Amino acid sequence: MTTQAQPPSETVLALAAWQLPDNDYRPADYMLKETLLSLGNGYLGTRGSFEEGAPAGVPHCEGTYLNGVYSSEPIVYGESAYAFAKHNHKMLQVANGKVLCVSVDQQSVNIGGALSHQRQLDMQSGVLHRNWIWQSQSGKQLQLQSRRFISQQRPQLLVIELTLTALNFSGPVTLSSALDAAYAGYHKADDPRVGVMSIADSLSLRQQALLPQGGQMLHQAKGSDSWVVACWQDQLPAATPSLPPAITADNYLQQEYQLHLEQGKPLSVHKLVVYQHAAAGADTAQLCQQAQQTLQDAATAGFNTLLTEQQQWWQQFWQGADLEIAGDLALQQGIRFNLFSLAQSAGRNGQSNIAAKGLTGPGYDGHYFWDTEVYVIPVMSLLQPGLARQLLAHRYSQLPAARARARQMSHQRGALYPWRTIGGEECSAYFPAGTAQYHINAAIAYAIRSYYLASGDRDFMASMGMEMLVETSRLWLELGFFNPRAGGRFEIHQVTGPDEYTAIVNNNYYTNAMVKLQLSFCCELLTAEPTWANRLGVSSEELAKWQQAASQMYLPYDSELQIHAQDDSFLQKQRWDFANTPAEKYPLLLHFHPLVIYRHQVLKQADTVLANVLLDDQISPAQKARDLAYYEPLTTHDSSLSACIHSIAFAETGDITRAQHFFGDSARMDLDNHHGNTEVGVHIACMAGSWLSLVQGFAGVRVRADGLYLAPKLPPQLGQLRFHLQYQQRLLRITVTATEARCELLRGEPLTLYLHGKPVTLTTGAHL
Amino acid sequence: MTTQAQPPSETVLALAAWQLPDNDYRPADYMLKETLLSLGNGYLGTRGSFEEGAPAGVPHCEGTYLNGVYSSEPIVYGESAYAFAKHNHKMLQVANGKVLCVSVDQQSVNIGGALSHQRQLDMQSGVLHRNWIWQSQSGKQLQLQSRRFISQQRPQLLVIELTLTALNFSGPVTLSSALDAAYAGYHKADDPRVGVMSIADSLSLRQQALLPQGGQMLHQAKGSDSWVVACWQDQLPAATPSLPPAITADNYLQQEYQLHLEQGKPLSVHKLVVYQHAAAGADTAQLCQQAQQTLQDAATAGFNTLLTEQQQWWQQFWQGADLEIAGDLALQQGIRFNLFSLAQSAGRNGQSNIAAKGLTGPGYDGHYFWDTEVYVIPVMSLLQPGLARQLLAHRYSQLPAARARARQMSHQRGALYPWRTIGGEECSAYFPAGTAQYHINAAIAYAIRSYYLASGDRDFMASMGMEMLVETSRLWLELGFFNPRAGGRFEIHQVTGPDEYTAIVNNNYYTNAMVKLQLSFCCELLTAEPTWANRLGVSSEELAKWQQAASQMYLPYDSELQIHAQDDSFLQKQRWDFANTPAEKYPLLLHFHPLVIYRHQVLKQADTVLANVLLDDQISPAQKARDLAYYEPLTTHDSSLSACIHSIAFAETGDITRAQHFFGDSARMDLDNHHGNTEVGVHIACMAGSWLSLVQGFAGVRVRADGLYLAPKLPPQLGQLRFHLQYQQRLLRITVTATEARCELLRGEPLTLYLHGKPVTLTTGAHL
Repeated sequence: MTTQAQPPSETVLALAAWQLPDNDYRPADYMLKETLLSLGNGYLGTRGSFEEGAPAGVPHCEGTYLNGVYSSEPIVYGESAYAFAKHNHKMLQVANGKVLCVSVDQQSVNIGGALSHQRQLDMQSGVLHRNWIWQSQSGKQLQLQSRRFISQQRPQLLVIELTLTALNFSGPVTLSSALDAAYAGYHKADDPRVGVMSIADSLSLRQQALLPQGGQMLHQAKGSDSWVVACWQDQLPAATPSLPPAITADNYLQQEYQLHLEQGKPLSVHKLVVYQHAAAGADTAQLCQQAQQTLQDAATAGFNTLLTEQQQWWQQFWQGADLEIAGDLALQQGIRFNLFSLAQSAGRNGQSNIAAKGLTGPGYDGHYFWDTEVYVIPVMSLLQPGLARQLLAHRYSQLPAARARARQMSHQRGALYPWRTIGGEECSAYFPAGTAQYHINAAIAYAIRSYYLASGDRDFMASMGMEMLVETSRLWLELGFFNPRAGGRFEIHQVTGPDEYTAIVNNNYYTNAMVKLQLSFCCELLTAEPTWANRLGVSSEELAKWQQAASQMYLPYDSELQIHAQDDSFLQKQRWDFANTPAEKYPLLLHFHPLVIYRHQVLKQADTVLANVLLDDQISPAQKARDLAYYEPLTTHDSSLSACIHSIAFAETGDITRAQHFFGDSARMDLDNHHGNTEVGVHIACMAGSWLSLVQGFAGVRVRADGLYLAPKLPPQLGQLRFHLQYQQRLLRITVTATEARCELLRGEPLTLYLHGKPVTLTTGAHL
Repeated sequence: MTTQAQPPSETVLALAAWQLPDNDYRPADYMLKETLLSLGNGYLGTRGSFEEGAPAGVPHCEGTYLNGVYSSEPIVYGESAYAFAKHNHKMLQVANGKVLCVSVDQQSVNIGGALSHQRQLDMQSGVLHRNWIWQSQSGKQLQLQSRRFISQQRPQLLVIELTLTALNFSGPVTLSSALDAAYAGYHKADDPRVGVMSIADSLSLRQQALLPQGGQMLHQAKGSDSWVVACWQDQLPAATPSLPPAITADNYLQQEYQLHLEQGKPLSVHKLVVYQHAAAGADTAQLCQQAQQTLQDAATAGFNTLLTEQQQWWQQFWQGADLEIAGDLALQQGIRFNLFSLAQSAGRNGQSNIAAKGLTGPGYDGHYFWDTEVYVIPVMSLLQPGLARQLLAHRYSQLPAARARARQMSHQRGALYPWRTIGGEECSAYFPAGTAQYHINAAIAYAIRSYYLASGDRDFMASMGMEMLVETSRLWLELGFFNPRAGGRFEIHQVTGPDEYTAIVNNNYYTNAMVKLQLSFCCELLTAEPTWANRLGVSSEELAKWQQAASQMYLPYDSELQIHAQDDSFLQKQRWDFANTPAEKYPLLLHFHPLVIYRHQVLKQADTVLANVLLDDQISPAQKARDLAYYEPLTTHDSSLSACIHSIAFAETGDITRAQHFFGDSARMDLDNHHGNTEVGVHIACMAGSWLSLVQGFAGVRVRADGLYLAPKLPPQLGQLRFHLQYQQRLLRITVTATEARCELLRGEPLTLYLHGKPVTLTTGAHL
């Protein structure tokens, strides 16, 4: 349904190839920019709020988050039932260490008195710059320049530099630096996609103390009992007098300093903030000591060293990951922002994953969904394989919880991963669009397959991947059955597929097809590696059962329409009345009861179409085209996961114009706030998906068991596309134009790949 | 699935034809007996608790309730969605006025010191008797006899007589009489069928005062803001000294009296308690005055007059409603208790209905379900047609709320009644087994049809019935559609039928069949009475559409099995593994996630079988037998609404042995606590259903458009069955034995009925 009117969004940040320039302050955009100017390093994330806090009365959403750390609270049901999810996890919101407030002659320096104001997030170095001039009521002009970054090399560290220049006076100014764990969270009423993130709801203060030019707080996360320490240190010119602490309340520590400015002479102060957590039961003295040591190390290194480290990390990242689009600055900025956000949000420590909104906001409570496996890991496998492995390692660490969940759901064997979680237990409070999405298991298997095909990492398979594959495969045989009433075909009932506008159906094509793919892959590996089968207790009978299930898997098909049926009943339903659905009734989920939506042929997002994209060459292009032609007009794309997949699907089936349209939707979904909710966080899956649109869609890159395939079909609007791939210990750079494709092997052993089906061998230095 | 082991329940009350004798006190049974010895009059109900309160440490559930009055609170969802039910109503639990405590020499007289203890609920007069002897530590013996009833003639009145006899001493005893609105409610963890009923949660105290030998409290119900006044007066022998009030706390008023007993000389005191409510915004002074007047009138009438009124009311009730079973005292007691409970619980004022557990406990929060329409009204239509009309009038009063609900559910026209409610708004917090049960609309239509066929009440149809029929019919055309992919047959999608172990399906046979019945009935009436159609704005086009929907209604049928399919997908599912489901895993809903249950062919209760019973002669006996043979083995009967219907179904299809088995299950379901949860209230629908088992099942009574049909097939165990029927202004008495049927016209015009299909004419005095 490409005709659906999206309210046109203004571009709130200016265009630039490597920057996000924020050239004007508008209260209505403050919260959106908090998201867009977020900083993170996969562990620690903080939103792009002003150092002095949000202007009075302006909607805002202060937030600093730790990935993989969470509070937990009981889920309340009006009417509960057996094995309903018991607790909701929330990504831990921690103390705000960004606070730096200046006052002149007792007047607070804030946006109200600004003569000019610019910010700029530099994606090449991961630094947020701010530069503004403020004027007092008596005419004193003060220039404030700040640089803020979250260290990529030191996971716990936030760094801020503030430079003050008195433009037309000399004299004292007061600086106050604070650590604030008392700030309120944000809640947007009546939108189930947005969680409440009130810091007081999630943290219990255990200790706090002011230290010389800084302070420290120790909290415990409610429900999970994890410990979190936050501490900071201000670095000021020697002999800056500290004023007595003005305010020291519970959850609020502040240091005040008297600075003397000489007209025209810049004065810089630095603030270093460290956040560190430990599991329940940890030695808190040790935890605090570690944090203090980290803080001390950073202080000793000093701002310039820290900044250099930062620049180096990002330089290295972009060397292996950059994607250049010639001829369209907006798309270029969009795709870089998307890659930048993925790098900032993905957990790197094997104890965390990537939340649906990364570390950029409270949306979806910071939960991990299948977004990771179907959208992010296939990208990371080709850009940052080490990081992809860490994301999968995190899922592996939660395999025991998935086994326990399978038992709760009355499955005797196997593992069932939760639809949404942080700590490993199912957190979905609405099971028809939660627990019923059993396809999360197939998504994890798909990600393992994607990573393995791209990396060839047998060590990972032996130590983690195979066990996850086997345990999730076992679950399918528990869930599905060989239906005697249908010739013994393998059927899977009462599940919800990716399209959440259809729930609890029999034989969802996507699910069945993905399970078939999973079981086939699993059987191939185990047949080739009997030692893995032995170690994991897979008998030949079990293996045979999986092979049988894969080969007899029922993939619903309507012979009259010659299309795959989304499920057993979908095609029998009434079609949604799009003609009489005004634009303001989208997204449908906010304007119609689920039963109304479920009753109709209407899709939130790609389902059959997604399966066909993921199944690659197992489905013929003609079949893909028929399925697409039927389902796309029924799709609202109310989910941000939809446009990118449709872009690939149209590219695969030769409709480059529509592929380009959908790519445009996804490439700048957050920068242009297409879904109107970026203020609570970016759309991580869509960001990854936009890279897939370019690389899988337009460049036709496919990673198959027998090698790497490339079949570019560039839209004429895109002059040239250049991107990097890591493939089986090699680094490739690929340049595509409307007429030619050029592959360079930048690092690694010679490689044979397939360009438009023909084998081509690359050796280092020898460019195709 | 008749083989399912029900844990054998002991009979907690002794057998008797007209009484419920309670001959021994056992702490474990206290709460169950509170339910069984409940008293009520359709407006006011109170549980059979001891006057002095429950013994310490014994599980109990004090409760006094007002029907149709409720508190309301927001429903909390872990994850909400558009048009989810917003508030939960709770049947209002009001102050306990039963409190009468005696002490001798500062020793509390309670069950701990009882030498003997009997109670007996007399169903012929609606009076609960208690008679016990207590001995003090020093050997003083006191006999306590009480009679308690809720007046059938004065809806607001509870009456208690307490007679004290000092058996071996003379001297003072202290009596304290209280009104207690501070008592705790009851909550059984982890059972979604049981609500929490804490009086403090639902009532805000606005005024309270002690009055001479009594007192008064004024409360406001939370959420609904209804006003409730409770006041009482003690009647004591002249010159009994009142002691100063010992305790007067918020929500607790107490009067103490010093009584002087002479050995062997009984002394009686009477306590009158009045409860009365008014809507939010009412004049509370006037409300209190009315209650005081009601109290004064009762006091003036005196205990004996009140008792006589009570006896007369019940005498009259039984004259028109009694059912005699010769040869089985247990069944006789069971069926009388069921009729007695129906009469006590059904609202009579047109502003209330009959809750799933009547006025006997907190189960299901006192909500009204379809139980009323499919189970109770068909019985009441033949026993107490005036009362049936009042129940329907109550639904009519909530038609505006049902219209509003239809709009919330995106239906442009028509009315959608809530699955569960008290005040008219949808209170179901789990929509797959709540709002999705659209068949509530068809149930209301079925009840209107049942009442109209039994009573011939055209005035009701003109003023209320037809409008409800039309508005609920309109909804079906909004919900269903003529499916172009299936030859234009009328289909209804994404609904849940009566079997709650299967949810959100397409073309539930029960729903479709009942809608067909409704639309046909509605069209017949409107065709015969064009003025009704005109008044209600039913155009000829609309009428034609309904006729078309009825005639093209899709009733799923499996030609291979030659049975009706419960829905489009049911027969494709895997059968439940009954063999490996131990007895302690029932009811399934408490031991399996809904998805596990939904995935299998397993029924909670009659669904297809229920439709066939309600459709009467529209389905052939052979078809009914095949459907029954397929579905019954898949049915757990976890719902108390199932056994009675299966009894009728087996009787209809000639299996009298199994019919008798299921009847036995339902006739004494509460007296024998078959479902193990009668402690939170009786099972009203089952009670009505047990009468249907006898009258529809064994006596073969059917009320059809063309008259009254009778076709008895008595099980040999039942020597004789005699029952009453009110049919179109007549009172009939019907006596059935294994070999003959005898019909007597006790009142009314001559009548032709059909006995085993043959017309027979009855005139007064002329018995067939």
